[in-house]
Amino acid sequence: MHKRRYELNIVMIGSGNVAAVLGRKFRAAGHSIVQVYGRNAGTAGRLAAEWGTVAVQDHSQLSPDADLYMIAVADDAIGEVTREMKLPGKVVAHTAAAVPAAVLAGVTGHYGVFYPLQSLRSEMKQLPDIPVFTDGNDDMARDLLEQLARSISGGKVYHAGDEERLKLHVAAVVVSNFTNHLFVLAEEYCRKENIDFRQLWPLIQETASRVRDISPRQVQTGPAIRNDKATIRRHLEILEKHPQLRNIYLTLSESIRAGNGPAGN
Amino acid sequence: MHKRRYELNIVMIGSGNVAAVLGRKFRAAGHSIVQVYGRNAGTAGRLAAEWGTVAVQDHSQLSPDADLYMIAVADDAIGEVTREMKLPGKVVAHTAAAVPAAVLAGVTGHYGVFYPLQSLRSEMKQLPDIPVFTDGNDDMARDLLEQLARSISGGKVYHAGDEERLKLHVAAVVVSNFTNHLFVLAEEYCRKENIDFRQLWPLIQETASRVRDISPRQVQTGPAIRNDKATIRRHLEILEKHPQLRNIYLTLSESIRAGNGPAGN
Repeated sequence: MHKRRYELNIVMIGSGNVAAVLGRKFRAAGHSIVQVYGRNAGTAGRLAAEWGTVAVQDHSQLSPDADLYMIAVADDAIGEVTREMKLPGKVVAHTAAAVPAAVLAGVTGHYGVFYPLQSLRSEMKQLPDIPVFTDGNDDMARDLLEQLARSISGGKVYHAGDEERLKLHVAAVVVSNFTNHLFVLAEEYCRKENIDFRQLWPLIQETASRVRDISPRQVQTGPAIRNDKATIRRHLEILEKHPQLRNIYLTLSESIRAGNGPAGN
Repeated sequence: MHKRRYELNIVMIGSGNVAAVLGRKFRAAGHSIVQVYGRNAGTAGRLAAEWGTVAVQDHSQLSPDADLYMIAVADDAIGEVTREMKLPGKVVAHTAAAVPAAVLAGVTGHYGVFYPLQSLRSEMKQLPDIPVFTDGNDDMARDLLEQLARSISGGKVYHAGDEERLKLHVAAVVVSNFTNHLFVLAEEYCRKENIDFRQLWPLIQETASRVRDISPRQVQTGPAIRNDKATIRRHLEILEKHPQLRNIYLTLSESIRAGNGPAGN
């Protein structure tokens, strides 16, 4: 069967959250997943079943004739997964922000990165918007990965080399991992104080939605920015029973009070 | 004209973000704003014009026959605004989380609180969901404020006394003010590193939306939770040029690593 250029046969290496969501996006865009390679037989088998394909556990079983081998595993597993992998002539990419592309140089002469700047969960019902940052060591890798990104991501496709990807990753950690940690601490605090965390949902949504309309700097509110010492003191009294959150409260309030650089207030 | 019980004549005291948004919500629910009392003649005049009513600057000009006097001013302005205000027999409420209801005891025998647990901005085009926490010192204040809340807030109406409101406020500061501060620092970091902050929008939305589906504790990801020292070290190198964010990065990463209480991971 003759495939159009941007309908690819892809081997998915990994079976976690990123593999699951990217695989679904790829399939929805007309590409085929021809194999799932995963150390976890359970999750790899489930993805393979979902996609009507096969799961393999040993790199010697990897299909030799796919268009692309997408390595969607944890950062620190990329080295181990690729150690004995040889796919000369093939395009191989990983999805990690903080890992240089050249970690794949021993696998193939055409390697690159396909970094989805989004928090992906296997159980997602609706697939979210995913900005994709691609890179490649040569035209073959670059072109294929960029076209694949365009096929799943509308206009949100960018190029980013190792250094820029690492810088993006720092920003992503701040706005996602750290924000989520604040939600974790708030949920725990609510549980202990007998407050229904769900009452905070509309506020959480509004705070996040607003970044699209107005710079966060212009909407900073709360006792710290107005240096409302009486309210801060009363908050700290309540937080005596929550030392971990109290420590965060002090650090972030101090940072807010200190302003935000030369244009801060 | 005979009004149904829950169509109230309201004097709005204050002309900032909370006054503007609550006033619009009240009007959309069929209530009338009969006066806007505000020290800022510009913003009070604009709200009065928007609502087809009059703005007054002196408490002696306050209409004596409204059903409700809603004090929507900054926490630390409530004392000054109400110092010489006497409205015996009337229901008077403020909107502040961290201020006890009894601060209004000198104004009237029927006082209370109408606390909207939401971040409100005067320029909002669409009015967001607003959970409302009401309190009153007697049945007259409690009933009127609760009915008003029900008229604008669907099912999201709760009772909260001074102590519970203060506890809610702590949680609101954590999930909104602190989250927004992370966005401020990330935006500043992106500007300096020549990254387009808008590329992070989908990630910010997803992180916030997900709290509705799954506990934040179960979706904590990132280098800190997996104790990925190599990635953290590279992030800290990049953050050498961003000392304020670097400090936050260290504190929050340490907190994530420390786990989140007895059920943490």
